Amino acid sequence: MASEMLNIRQVKVNDPFWNSRIDLVIDHVIPYQWRVLNDQEEDAEPSHAIRNFEIAAGLAQGEFQGYQFQDSDLAKWIEGASYSLLYRDDPELRKNLRDVIGLIGKAQQPDGYLDTHYIVKKPDKKWQELAHGHELYCAGHMLEAAAAYQLATGDDSLMRIMDRLVDLIRSKFGKGPGQIDAYPGHEEIELALMKAYRLTGKEKYRDLAEYFILNRGSKPGFFNDPRFIELAKADKALDASYYQAHKPAVEQDSAEGHAVRAMYFFTGMSDVAAATGNEALKEALKKLWRSVTERRMYVTGGVGSQGNGERFTIDYDLPNDTCYTETCAAIGLAMWSLRMLALEPRAEYADILEKALYNNVLSGISQDGEHYFYVNPLMLKPDVARFRVDHESVEPSRVKWFPCACCPPNVARTLTGLGQYLYTRSGRRIYQHLYIGNETALGDIRLSCRSSMPWAGEAEITVSAAEPFEMALRVPGYAKDFRTRINGQAAAPNMENGYAVLALRDGDRVEVRFDMPPQVLAANPRVTEDCGRACVVRGPLVYCAEETDNGPLLQDFRLNPAAGIETAQSDLFGGIRTLLVHGTRTADDGDNRLYRPYGEVTRTKADLLLIPYYLWNNRGEGEMTVWMNVKGD
Amino acid sequence: MASEMLNIRQVKVNDPFWNSRIDLVIDHVIPYQWRVLNDQEEDAEPSHAIRNFEIAAGLAQGEFQGYQFQDSDLAKWIEGASYSLLYRDDPELRKNLRDVIGLIGKAQQPDGYLDTHYIVKKPDKKWQELAHGHELYCAGHMLEAAAAYQLATGDDSLMRIMDRLVDLIRSKFGKGPGQIDAYPGHEEIELALMKAYRLTGKEKYRDLAEYFILNRGSKPGFFNDPRFIELAKADKALDASYYQAHKPAVEQDSAEGHAVRAMYFFTGMSDVAAATGNEALKEALKKLWRSVTERRMYVTGGVGSQGNGERFTIDYDLPNDTCYTETCAAIGLAMWSLRMLALEPRAEYADILEKALYNNVLSGISQDGEHYFYVNPLMLKPDVARFRVDHESVEPSRVKWFPCACCPPNVARTLTGLGQYLYTRSGRRIYQHLYIGNETALGDIRLSCRSSMPWAGEAEITVSAAEPFEMALRVPGYAKDFRTRINGQAAAPNMENGYAVLALRDGDRVEVRFDMPPQVLAANPRVTEDCGRACVVRGPLVYCAEETDNGPLLQDFRLNPAAGIETAQSDLFGGIRTLLVHGTRTADDGDNRLYRPYGEVTRTKADLLLIPYYLWNNRGEGEMTVWMNVKGD
Repeated sequence: MASEMLNIRQVKVNDPFWNSRIDLVIDHVIPYQWRVLNDQEEDAEPSHAIRNFEIAAGLAQGEFQGYQFQDSDLAKWIEGASYSLLYRDDPELRKNLRDVIGLIGKAQQPDGYLDTHYIVKKPDKKWQELAHGHELYCAGHMLEAAAAYQLATGDDSLMRIMDRLVDLIRSKFGKGPGQIDAYPGHEEIELALMKAYRLTGKEKYRDLAEYFILNRGSKPGFFNDPRFIELAKADKALDASYYQAHKPAVEQDSAEGHAVRAMYFFTGMSDVAAATGNEALKEALKKLWRSVTERRMYVTGGVGSQGNGERFTIDYDLPNDTCYTETCAAIGLAMWSLRMLALEPRAEYADILEKALYNNVLSGISQDGEHYFYVNPLMLKPDVARFRVDHESVEPSRVKWFPCACCPPNVARTLTGLGQYLYTRSGRRIYQHLYIGNETALGDIRLSCRSSMPWAGEAEITVSAAEPFEMALRVPGYAKDFRTRINGQAAAPNMENGYAVLALRDGDRVEVRFDMPPQVLAANPRVTEDCGRACVVRGPLVYCAEETDNGPLLQDFRLNPAAGIETAQSDLFGGIRTLLVHGTRTADDGDNRLYRPYGEVTRTKADLLLIPYYLWNNRGEGEMTVWMNVKGD
Repeated sequence: MASEMLNIRQVKVNDPFWNSRIDLVIDHVIPYQWRVLNDQEEDAEPSHAIRNFEIAAGLAQGEFQGYQFQDSDLAKWIEGASYSLLYRDDPELRKNLRDVIGLIGKAQQPDGYLDTHYIVKKPDKKWQELAHGHELYCAGHMLEAAAAYQLATGDDSLMRIMDRLVDLIRSKFGKGPGQIDAYPGHEEIELALMKAYRLTGKEKYRDLAEYFILNRGSKPGFFNDPRFIELAKADKALDASYYQAHKPAVEQDSAEGHAVRAMYFFTGMSDVAAATGNEALKEALKKLWRSVTERRMYVTGGVGSQGNGERFTIDYDLPNDTCYTETCAAIGLAMWSLRMLALEPRAEYADILEKALYNNVLSGISQDGEHYFYVNPLMLKPDVARFRVDHESVEPSRVKWFPCACCPPNVARTLTGLGQYLYTRSGRRIYQHLYIGNETALGDIRLSCRSSMPWAGEAEITVSAAEPFEMALRVPGYAKDFRTRINGQAAAPNMENGYAVLALRDGDRVEVRFDMPPQVLAANPRVTEDCGRACVVRGPLVYCAEETDNGPLLQDFRLNPAAGIETAQSDLFGGIRTLLVHGTRTADDGDNRLYRPYGEVTRTKADLLLIPYYLWNNRGEGEMTVWMNVKGD
């Protein structure tokens, strides 16, 4: 049974944990990024993104600067800024959005073409560098921005611009005579077209998305066409799997290549499968889901094991210190998880959605909102990360703004757009996937939810509705003793695929309670780097140890999994739950030999204070580890 | 108190363990390499080394092919082949040596210049590409070959050729007017000059070596001279430390940069320190020794933690799977250790010499003598090594002959030249550093040694001597209950710096006995990759586990250090001692979850069969590990 995604107008997050992040984005990140995009932020690299549009529009002189996908930074910002208006109206922001959309319209060419890199720098190369040119990727992000802006403001001016571009793309790409029969090197437009389809109902969007999805990996594709591989030649060792083009979508059964590309592809593929009822795509998606979540995903929801190619590698290859685990890839995993829930509401998909959001996505942004991780390792030794060439993609600390700035605006739009991830619906059944406080309006059904997550398994949902309806409440995979009450009385829900289904009516008050004791996890023994090790989670949060709390040589600690874990309320970061774990460390006996008889080493009792992984590196640079060596059998 | 190195004529190895390797080199490796050097071996890449000399001599037409240091392959072969004549005279080999030396003489230019790369390919670039041109490196290897050939045959024809080249180098390099004031990018000539000095007594060799050693790292050196950095520009991120040129030799206190370069440098530096009595060099060497052996060396005697730059990295950075640990670097460590023994006989230097020889050097060559490891990792997962870019320098199996073929002939010359490493002498005191069977003649003193090493701590030395003398017998660091007997009577030696000193006279029969039970070792807790782990050694041999004996997922095993280790005589490899260790493995309960509660994992008792590390990868490709996770505190 499928369910439908909701749109951002329908769900407004109202949650102490998440609104502190959303407020940060609204108060600091969106204004900061606006200054960066306008080259007005002194502490950051000039983005040149808006300048590129001014040059393309003939309003300024100069050269295109930045990456070929620089336009997408502005697009993601528009998306995030639009969502923010739903939380806090801001006339100045509305004006900035109107103005910049006006600028985008002026940069659009008479035939509808819109990509400043090619307009300004390579006008004779349009649609010729599909592998790495990112024209369709930028078009996708601008289409997402258009949908967001229209949803938030009712103004379809950007959507009309993008509609003209989509028509141009439809005329250029396809299997007809004179058309380019290909697909983009970096997926994104597929999921954006499906968003536009859901918003407007125009089938041309869905059909173009379906064409790109089903055409991918076909032969002859652009990898066989010398016209389209120009930029790809500049990169080393890029095979078709890098672009998920090694096989047609319906035949794929393992997640390959560039992790962000793969996540965006699977997201669009799920959208198309849902909209077209393509069972073969759906079966492939289930295999791909298992490939990622059962063999190629970090416990933090991170994906992409290798910096070189920013890619998936092989099954169970999950190094903790040299991983890529890009913030954007975890955002992609969250997007895909939501689509899998739409295809088939199963709590296991929501477990992964929640894991990605609370860990690898949130870790991408600092507590001050102005520093970002691209790469989110599960273990860091700063001196090693600085010296070793095989750690070169790992930054020991978050940095202000990346030369390739995909992650910061992606985090911003994800946080302000968080409401999209909480629910799906199937007729009069509402699936609640995440226990995040919110105010929701779905026709006659109104939900008001308060939650204590991620610190305690407590939520309360008050409903109003003209007619009875059902709520399917997710039972998290980590939840113990999950209980529901309706109006103070114990409820007896039906269990369906990990959801507790309750029949509700106007005025009902639902209470959800579950325990989530800290838990020690082991990895599959095929994960070499986690052998002999364990990590600690509590609810959706993965915990880690930092040098600032525990001193150096974190890898020397051995966790006693049987010794129990103490949970404490801490004043850190405005009030979080910390964990204290027990184990041993090498006694400092002054013996500094490089190798010595094992029996001559004394180990003494030691504890480690753990904090949620998403908070690491907010108190200076130092060692960090998620996985700890284990004491015991 | 210093001691003197012996030469290869004085010590002939006669030892069941090592002569099987030496015979392999004589019977297979030297003839095989001769065919490779002559481009006559079908299964190997054509070397073109001899062809280059023919072209340089005007006897053939064609282009130079191979690396810029291709000449050194021939030089190392000449050295190894010369030594082999001391074990087994071979008229055909003598003729090949005579002929190829004749060819080298014909390739030499009227002014004495000799380097086929520059003669044939870049005649206008002589002495201008010091960073990477390897002219002085090749000259050094050919000088070592000349010394070996003269020692083995009494024929100084190659030495006379090289003497002319050395005179040319002396005229070109120095601090005089019109001279190039520099030093080689790859050290080697320094130690070779000192070998020639010891053989001939000509002070010009020593003086040139001293100049290069003391000049290194001086400013302005060739790194500041645009004339000399041409080839270096082609490489990325090479700073002065890559060439050990970041500081003058006397100021260096940590081993930096390219590991082979560093080892050859420290070897030549030790030779110069011994010959010139330079105390500042000696103090620097002691610091460098501690830097390597206390902070930057693998338990196998491997050095060079990173493939990129084939180099040392930072203290305690010793990854087991992505290390470089080049065979040539371990040979270099053995060479340096011997020089440290000459500077000051201390058993700790001999412990490292022995460790390097029995582990990282021997692992470089297959049991069939025709396959070689360049890189000697301490852990391998073949699928990971094949896929991951950060493992690209690791070969999952030995290969026949490298495009850059430094290691194979280096192993050959080291094995046939092994006699040089057994003893040093100080007047009438003979230091026995290695318990390797041999026949030795030192003036009136003759030693006949039989040994059961590395399988048992038993050696017997029969002496003849016109006058009384002393033997200083090394007490290995791993030896338990070290005992000596003279003519069947317990002896009471004086202990000096780890040596048991005995007064001997003609006809004495000395017995040495010590126990060497298998031992579990821990690494310093600063070695991240060995935290929570242990390895097993027995005497000089490091042991490892292979998939072929133990199945896959070796990292899942946890060693119980308290459970004891069983030593067994095995039929493998013609009779070796294997070890059986005890511990646990994850029970196969059919649960393939990527992460699961630690408490739901059952571990069952399991054993691992260990073989000596040097024998790994001789029975097909598979997982291997030296370090094992630990069960216990």
